[in-house]
Amino acid sequence: MKFSHIATDPKSGARAGIISTSHGEIHTPIFMPVGTAGSVKAVHQRELKDDIHAEIILGNTYHLYLRPGIELLEKAGGLHKFNGWDRPILTDSGGYQVYSLGANRKITEECVLFKSHIDGSKHTFTPENVMDIQRTIGADIIMAFDECTPYPCDYTYAKKSMELTHRWLTRCIQQIDSTEPKYGYEQTLFPIVQGSTYKDLREKSAEFIAAQNRDGNAIGGLSVGEPHEDMYAMTSLVCSILPADKPRYLMGVGTPENILECIALGIDMFDCVMPTRNARNGMLFTTAGIINIRNERWKDDLSPIDAAVGGYVSTFHSKAYLRHLIINKEILGAQIASIHNLTFYLWLVKEARKQILEGTFAGWKNEMVNKVSRRL
Amino acid sequence: MKFSHIATDPKSGARAGIISTSHGEIHTPIFMPVGTAGSVKAVHQRELKDDIHAEIILGNTYHLYLRPGIELLEKAGGLHKFNGWDRPILTDSGGYQVYSLGANRKITEECVLFKSHIDGSKHTFTPENVMDIQRTIGADIIMAFDECTPYPCDYTYAKKSMELTHRWLTRCIQQIDSTEPKYGYEQTLFPIVQGSTYKDLREKSAEFIAAQNRDGNAIGGLSVGEPHEDMYAMTSLVCSILPADKPRYLMGVGTPENILECIALGIDMFDCVMPTRNARNGMLFTTAGIINIRNERWKDDLSPIDAAVGGYVSTFHSKAYLRHLIINKEILGAQIASIHNLTFYLWLVKEARKQILEGTFAGWKNEMVNKVSRRL
Repeated sequence: MKFSHIATDPKSGARAGIISTSHGEIHTPIFMPVGTAGSVKAVHQRELKDDIHAEIILGNTYHLYLRPGIELLEKAGGLHKFNGWDRPILTDSGGYQVYSLGANRKITEECVLFKSHIDGSKHTFTPENVMDIQRTIGADIIMAFDECTPYPCDYTYAKKSMELTHRWLTRCIQQIDSTEPKYGYEQTLFPIVQGSTYKDLREKSAEFIAAQNRDGNAIGGLSVGEPHEDMYAMTSLVCSILPADKPRYLMGVGTPENILECIALGIDMFDCVMPTRNARNGMLFTTAGIINIRNERWKDDLSPIDAAVGGYVSTFHSKAYLRHLIINKEILGAQIASIHNLTFYLWLVKEARKQILEGTFAGWKNEMVNKVSRRL
Repeated sequence: MKFSHIATDPKSGARAGIISTSHGEIHTPIFMPVGTAGSVKAVHQRELKDDIHAEIILGNTYHLYLRPGIELLEKAGGLHKFNGWDRPILTDSGGYQVYSLGANRKITEECVLFKSHIDGSKHTFTPENVMDIQRTIGADIIMAFDECTPYPCDYTYAKKSMELTHRWLTRCIQQIDSTEPKYGYEQTLFPIVQGSTYKDLREKSAEFIAAQNRDGNAIGGLSVGEPHEDMYAMTSLVCSILPADKPRYLMGVGTPENILECIALGIDMFDCVMPTRNARNGMLFTTAGIINIRNERWKDDLSPIDAAVGGYVSTFHSKAYLRHLIINKEILGAQIASIHNLTFYLWLVKEARKQILEGTFAGWKNEMVNKVSRRL
């Protein structure tokens, strides 16, 4: 995997680049739609390409491991073959989902023991087997097995957890570097910075992660309920330490506003379930602001969902039609809203990239943050 | 509306024709996907055109009248404009849905009083206002307001009901013929033959309907639970009376087998929720037979859903992937299965048409009935 850092905005930390993978190029900054169990919910794979212009999607190791299971994915030749998405895939490590299981998981130095949310069956994730599982899923980018601390998190626990994450990283690296790609193409490991909202822990973690000298680096444990100021402060701090010649991935972020602010801080990659999950509830992100399409206000608004963002569903269908579908729980409503929101998210990062290349990002960003965060 | 009867199969009553409407041509025999509330569930309008090759869809007057409501549909310029489907639309009369409301509706000579299943509000359907409503929806083909009898139905009730349907038809015709098309294009009325499973009533009704000399005729009150033999016997009888130079529409039918058998009896148009409703539950109709994709048997079957039927989803995605999506209640599973089943239904009627034109329908039909009705 190769990262070409092409341009930096003169008035912010925003960067434009290209990540080259065996499944094609990713133009950064980029947003990655979340395809939890091998499907970006309510969106066809060809729509991800042709309408949304997604360049990479994310898969969740926890979900894919339980269903369809590693055996079937291996038989299919990996997730790309299984679901027909032939561009890059990044998989998370399953850590975040496993910790969300609460009482149904136990963390030890060696591993995490957990019970499936589907049938209660018992399973074990270790830094080593999670690397093997992601290799078998066929991810182009494999995430380290970390512990994601909740917010708030007391200092003692955050420190202990960060140190465990670092020890696990050493085991992940050992495992990745001693195994081969599963299907002939390169699979690269991104380590993850932790440290909750503590400045000294984030510094220490960022230095440890930077020192590993992997192809890219990630920031975890943010967007878990902390104030935006803390998210931005931690992101800014960590970006100042992580190497500039490697892509930086801020995990699980976020709103259009969060994404623009974090691009300004030097982040290159984002993922979040928000555009798809909120779409299914009728919340639309548009170039003019945020719309709750269930609102009576849109009942007879026959104007396009968002003419400015372009693309089939956003220009072809009216707000009134989409509202009718969402109100009546028609599946097509979830489909149209999901495609629209993802089209908007990809439009936003592409537009940001254009502004970075033209050296006009900072001013545009401030104007755009006001627009996209206002509720219509 | 013009019907060109192009060919008749030498060994059966099967016919090939073309219905010309203001929104384009319909090649018969044809299957009409059901778009209950302005959306064929889980299917984009462009997929109906590009993947499924649908030539006409059906809308439900009862649902559209309640939501989005006639006022909004009129403001939009009709359903074609509202949902973006620019090919022909047929609307049912709302009768069938209203009778399904059971205790929440009352039938009088004058009208049907009913309570909305959504909010319990009270409404009235008359033969006259149902014509007006369908004009406002913008249907190319408007169905008469009839009473659809249940099965079984005693002779006295069936006779009384048929006579009411005939009196209502006279009022429908009066209303249609004294009003103008709503949006400039032609809107034509199809009357409906009733009479339950009684030979003499069906004969009488078919003669009454044929005598109205409308552009097309429909058969209602079948596929409501009666044995297939009765459905075929009534269809055969009615087809022998309805004029050959008008299209014949068998409402609410049916399985692939039902469709093939009724094409052989002289039916030109079909509609049914089965391909979409059953798709959402994982039942697939294929060129090789019927598949319950939830079955363990398909777990690691990486072959295409149905290579023979062609089209994007059926050839691109594997049975194992679709099974994974359906088992995990992923919306994309409903989408792929719905597109596949409709693609198969449209493939089936197009293939039937080809065989009719080539004079080989009867033999092909017998072979195909065995194939498509077998459970894999």
